[in-house]
Amino acid sequence: MSEENKKLRPVSELGEFGLIKFLTNDIQIRNATTILGIGDDAAVLEYKDKQILAGTDMMTEGVHFDLTYMPLKHLGYKLAVVNFSDIYAMNGMVEQLLVNIGVSNRFTLEALDEFYTGVKLAAERYGVDIVGGDTVSSQKGMILSATVIGSVDKEKLVKRSGAKPNDLMVVSGDLGAAYLGLQILRREQEVFLVNPNHQPDLTPYAYLVERQLKPEARKDVVEWLAKNEIVPTSMIDISDGLSSEVIHITEASGYGAYIYEDKIPVHPETEAVAKEFNLNPLIAALNGGEDYELLFTIDQKDYEKIKNVPGFSIIGHITEDEGAYLITGLNEKLELKAQGWNAFLERKKAKDKPDDTSKTS
Amino acid sequence: MSEENKKLRPVSELGEFGLIKFLTNDIQIRNATTILGIGDDAAVLEYKDKQILAGTDMMTEGVHFDLTYMPLKHLGYKLAVVNFSDIYAMNGMVEQLLVNIGVSNRFTLEALDEFYTGVKLAAERYGVDIVGGDTVSSQKGMILSATVIGSVDKEKLVKRSGAKPNDLMVVSGDLGAAYLGLQILRREQEVFLVNPNHQPDLTPYAYLVERQLKPEARKDVVEWLAKNEIVPTSMIDISDGLSSEVIHITEASGYGAYIYEDKIPVHPETEAVAKEFNLNPLIAALNGGEDYELLFTIDQKDYEKIKNVPGFSIIGHITEDEGAYLITGLNEKLELKAQGWNAFLERKKAKDKPDDTSKTS
Repeated sequence: MSEENKKLRPVSELGEFGLIKFLTNDIQIRNATTILGIGDDAAVLEYKDKQILAGTDMMTEGVHFDLTYMPLKHLGYKLAVVNFSDIYAMNGMVEQLLVNIGVSNRFTLEALDEFYTGVKLAAERYGVDIVGGDTVSSQKGMILSATVIGSVDKEKLVKRSGAKPNDLMVVSGDLGAAYLGLQILRREQEVFLVNPNHQPDLTPYAYLVERQLKPEARKDVVEWLAKNEIVPTSMIDISDGLSSEVIHITEASGYGAYIYEDKIPVHPETEAVAKEFNLNPLIAALNGGEDYELLFTIDQKDYEKIKNVPGFSIIGHITEDEGAYLITGLNEKLELKAQGWNAFLERKKAKDKPDDTSKTS
Repeated sequence: MSEENKKLRPVSELGEFGLIKFLTNDIQIRNATTILGIGDDAAVLEYKDKQILAGTDMMTEGVHFDLTYMPLKHLGYKLAVVNFSDIYAMNGMVEQLLVNIGVSNRFTLEALDEFYTGVKLAAERYGVDIVGGDTVSSQKGMILSATVIGSVDKEKLVKRSGAKPNDLMVVSGDLGAAYLGLQILRREQEVFLVNPNHQPDLTPYAYLVERQLKPEARKDVVEWLAKNEIVPTSMIDISDGLSSEVIHITEASGYGAYIYEDKIPVHPETEAVAKEFNLNPLIAALNGGEDYELLFTIDQKDYEKIKNVPGFSIIGHITEDEGAYLITGLNEKLELKAQGWNAFLERKKAKDKPDDTSKTS
């Protein structure tokens, strides 16, 4: 490779059409449902007897990600996975992905290539076809959006709204780790701003940092459910924190829920680092978000199939009366509140005070 | 309505979940293919025997639109229509739309409502269901993306790649008007910056300004083709200018094309205003873009059906030899170049010099 070729190249070098070709020329089609991918006005798909699932998400620099600690390849991977998660939350399989990128002229071709490498890696691992997208200029920063298309057998479709009284509430994996990963990255960033020669050693925090930078979507859970012939009565992915998602399910279903503090799965590393930050790990699990685990409800008849399966926690049950509550270790009943992303600023101030959830009885 | 209610409200007032409800609570579902719209992790669609079409576009403030002259309602309408156009270009019908909005905190709820009113109006006029989307914060400015889903009977699908030698090249409507509309708006903006009391009278330019601010997609052309039992051999929508689109068709099909200067449809107002700006209207038609007309090729057997139909212009034909050429009124043969959006800066410098297209014979 000549010296010339090693130089970082501005995005403008290739022009709009050249850029799209550069980024997408090695994309392969894997799924029989993809009839025509990138290269025409629209992608062509064929699903026949399946129901089609479609979801979309947008992520903006400085709000959803910070390029000072988020490698572009991880960002591409995360954009894809976060979108896949929405389809798994409907009990479906992901088949196609469309990716839009808006970038200012400070981004080089190499940077976009790195980003796209992450998207392609996620597509490969999850068996998804990249079938479209748009690459445009932005005035400032990087803006991403993706649309994901998948399918599900009609009788296996799981909405948020199907939970019934006495259904068990189950969560996959563990919660709060992604939020603590973010706290670690922010702390390192602050140290770096003071001392740019500081070399962070993130090894002790590998699990938490990976949960933040390179989350996985729970395709395996959907496959496990199918194999064990369980169709959840409702399901949602945990993007905004457990509290929000429990409330989404109870409100959509028209019932309430009790979840139990001592049943909420928290990783030992999350526990330990929460202490370091003087945070209550429970708050990270309830309001942290970005875990991309699945929260679902099952009929009691399926209890035997799931009760001792590692990686699943039965955290509570659906109640006839409306309202979603946390039952603490001291047997207090606290009403859950939907915090979502917006509450993060307040949350950081409030830290681990027990009145973070309002007491009702 | 109390004084309190009339105040402009910051977007943060409602929070993420409240905002989505506020913007989407009056959305109605029109199409039988939409099983479940906004409100779950993904929309659910059912298409059975049809092929599904999916496309996506991103638009960023300061690059694709300028809010100093683009009313938000028009912007919402345009975002939708520009996306619809991609589906019509495949000879399909649009059924669902997903809309993502990223806005900085300078935007009020009223502004977002105005934007969404435009999206809903377009959805209503074109018979499309809004089934999903994301509303997020951005560091700066407004960023939009939309994904459109539609369907087509397998045997009626039209790609860019099906043109054959001697097929006729047809264009709907007229070209170059949207580009001149943009020039008028920019001129008014400059006058306004010098004299903020200046009241622009855009009445004489109504047609051109509307073509820029509130374009329409040619659903009617797709319907006309179906009614007259014409399946074009190839089709594309004119978003980047006629030159680009002719080249996309010829390259995808593996043939060439001749188009004739005196056949290219230009509206009298486009002609007149081009003179005012010392621009060659032909250049506006070839490289202006944003007309959202359809360019398609048909087999000669369909010539009789279309030859005298108002609103269609037969502008040329496909050639066995590769390369796309403009034949001028003086019978010169000029090679067409794909300019797209990126070329606009150069284009403005070059104005109407005849060497804008490179001469080859």
